[in-house]
Amino acid sequence: MKPKLTLKQIAFELDVSVSTVSKALRDSPEIGEDTRQKVKAFAKLYNYKPNNIALSLKNRKTRTIGLVLPEIVHDFFATVISGIEEVANKKGYNVIICLSNNSFDREVMNMEMLANGSTDGFILSVAKETQQKRDYHHLQEVINQGMPVVLVDRVVDEIICDKVIIDDAEGAAKAVQHLIDSGCRSIAIITTVDYVSVGKLRTNGYLNALRKNNITVNEDLILKIEDIDQSQEQIDEFLKSRNVDAVFAVNEQFAASAVKALVSKGLTVPEDVLVISFSDGELSRRFMPSLSTVNQHGAEMGARAAQLLIERLERVVDEERYQTAIINTSLIERESTLKTKKPVV
Amino acid sequence: MKPKLTLKQIAFELDVSVSTVSKALRDSPEIGEDTRQKVKAFAKLYNYKPNNIALSLKNRKTRTIGLVLPEIVHDFFATVISGIEEVANKKGYNVIICLSNNSFDREVMNMEMLANGSTDGFILSVAKETQQKRDYHHLQEVINQGMPVVLVDRVVDEIICDKVIIDDAEGAAKAVQHLIDSGCRSIAIITTVDYVSVGKLRTNGYLNALRKNNITVNEDLILKIEDIDQSQEQIDEFLKSRNVDAVFAVNEQFAASAVKALVSKGLTVPEDVLVISFSDGELSRRFMPSLSTVNQHGAEMGARAAQLLIERLERVVDEERYQTAIINTSLIERESTLKTKKPVV
Repeated sequence: MKPKLTLKQIAFELDVSVSTVSKALRDSPEIGEDTRQKVKAFAKLYNYKPNNIALSLKNRKTRTIGLVLPEIVHDFFATVISGIEEVANKKGYNVIICLSNNSFDREVMNMEMLANGSTDGFILSVAKETQQKRDYHHLQEVINQGMPVVLVDRVVDEIICDKVIIDDAEGAAKAVQHLIDSGCRSIAIITTVDYVSVGKLRTNGYLNALRKNNITVNEDLILKIEDIDQSQEQIDEFLKSRNVDAVFAVNEQFAASAVKALVSKGLTVPEDVLVISFSDGELSRRFMPSLSTVNQHGAEMGARAAQLLIERLERVVDEERYQTAIINTSLIERESTLKTKKPVV
Repeated sequence: MKPKLTLKQIAFELDVSVSTVSKALRDSPEIGEDTRQKVKAFAKLYNYKPNNIALSLKNRKTRTIGLVLPEIVHDFFATVISGIEEVANKKGYNVIICLSNNSFDREVMNMEMLANGSTDGFILSVAKETQQKRDYHHLQEVINQGMPVVLVDRVVDEIICDKVIIDDAEGAAKAVQHLIDSGCRSIAIITTVDYVSVGKLRTNGYLNALRKNNITVNEDLILKIEDIDQSQEQIDEFLKSRNVDAVFAVNEQFAASAVKALVSKGLTVPEDVLVISFSDGELSRRFMPSLSTVNQHGAEMGARAAQLLIERLERVVDEERYQTAIINTSLIERESTLKTKKPVV
C-alpha cells in the first residue's frame, strides 16, 4: 500500500499553502479557479482521500469552536472559558469543550473527534503529559488540514500558530518584588515540577527577582510539587523545618496549604509570615486571610484567543503570519501580605 | 407549504414508539424488516425529511456523549464531569461539554448543535432560566428524535427520562439536625430564590428538621439570595442584625461569606456560631476553619448518569421504562461545627 498523501505534501508539491490546498479541495471561493482545478487534479491523480468528514459535507461551516483544556477544577480555566464564550457567542459561534484530564491520549482523541466535522478551529491548552512527551503531531495535523489552532496559557514553541500567554515570569517577579518591598528576605517558593511550563516560568521569575535585589538564592527554600493531591503533607513538612518570612506559591491551592502549615506551626499570616499566591480564584478571594495574588486575567486571555481564532476563520485572504498576544498580569494586594515593614535591627 | 411531519406524528400514526421510527429510518437491525419498510414507506409518502444530519450519515454511531451544564465555576459540576468522563472513557465514549451559562437560549442552541450528528445522547443539568420559564420543548425534541437524555441534579418533572438526583431535602435536614444535636436552636438559613429547584428542596429540608425537633420556624432567619455575586453584602447585612447560634448555607460560597460576616461582627466560628455548608468543594476543604458540609457525591452522580445513558444507548431491545437514581448524601464534619454542647442554663 502506498503511503497516504497528506495535505502538506500536496502543498509542497504545488508550492502553495496547506490551507490553500484544504480550501481548494473544499471548493472555497476564496481560492482562484485555476488553483482549485490544479489542486483537485493533483489530489485525484494521487488518489488523495481526505480523512475529514467535514470536507465531504461541502464546506459546511459549523460556526463552532473546539476548546480542549487540561482540567476545569481550578478557577483559572473556568475564567478562560467564560472569556471565550463571551466573544464567541457575540459573534455567533458555539463553543464545544473537551477535557484531556492532562492525558496525552485523551487530548489526541478529543482533537480527532472534534476535527471530524464538529468544529471550524481549535483553542487549546496543552496537557501536562503532552508537554512531558513533547509530542505535538496532533496539533500539526489539524493545522495541516486547514483548521486554525490558537494555543492559550500552556503553549509550546514547536507549533507555529497564534498564541495567547501571560508573562508568567514577570508576574511572579512582581509578586516576589512585593514581598521584598515589604521587608522580606527569606522567601520560600512552592512550585510545580519543571516540565509544567508555567511552573517553570514562575520559578524563573522568583529567581530573577531575588537576583535583581541581590538576595542569594537558597535552593533549600524551593519546593517542587508533582501531585497537587499530596501537596498539603509536603508543604507541612517543608515549612515545619524552615524559618522564612514569606512564601510565594505558584497557585492558590499551594498558597492556602502554606497558610495552614504556618498556622499549625503557631505562626500568623500576615503578622509573622507573608503569603502570596498566583491566579485570582474563588479560594484567594474568599480565604481568611484573603490571599494577595497575581491576577492572570483568564477571561481576557480567553476573549483574546477567541478573537484571534474567529478573525483567522473569517479572513478572506489567507494570513500566514501568526501572533503571540501577551496579556499583562496585575498584582492584587489583600490581607495575606498586609504588613507594615519590619524595622531593620 | 404543508406543516412538517415529525417523528412523533409518524409514531402516532403507525402506533409504534418514536425511537422505533427513528431507528427504522436509520435502517437499524434492532427493528424488524416489516416495521422498517412500513415506516420508510410512510415517511416517503408524506415526504418526511429528517432535520438531523446524523440520520443521513447512515447510522453513524458517534460514541460521543453530549453534556450540557449550567456552569462550571463551582466544584460540584466539575466533580460530576469527572464521574461522567471516567465511566464514559472506560466504555469507549468521548464526552463533549457545552455550557448554558444558565441561559435558556444557550441551552437550546447547544442541544440543537450537539443533536446535529455530534452525539448519541445527552446528559443535562437544566439551566436556571429554563427552570424559571418551564419550557422544556428542546429536551422533548431530542428524545423524540430517538436520542436518550439523562437529567442530573437539576431535573424537571415534566420530562420523562432517566434521572440522577440526590435527596437534597434529606441532605439539608441531616445538616440542620447536626446543628440541633450540637445544641443550636436559633438557626439561620442562607438559600437561593425558590425557582432554583435544589435551593427550594434544601430549604424544605431545613424547615422539616426544625419542625421535627419542635423548633418554631422564624421567617426572619431565612435569607433568599438571587445573585451570588452580590451575596457577601446581603449576608453581612442579614447577619449583622440577627442573633443566631448557627447558620446553614445551601452552598459553600454562602457558607464562607457567612463566616466572614460573623468574624467581622466580632464572633468566632465555631466557638460562638456554628456554620455548615452544602457540597464538598475545594473551598470547604481548604477554608479556615474548614467547613462542615453535606457531600453531594458529584462524581458518583456523574458516573451513574453515564452508566444509565450508555446502557440505554447499547440496549438491543428498546426499554420504555425510566428510572430515577437517588444518590445518598453524607455529612462531613469539620472544624466549623466542632463544638462541645453548650450547657443548658
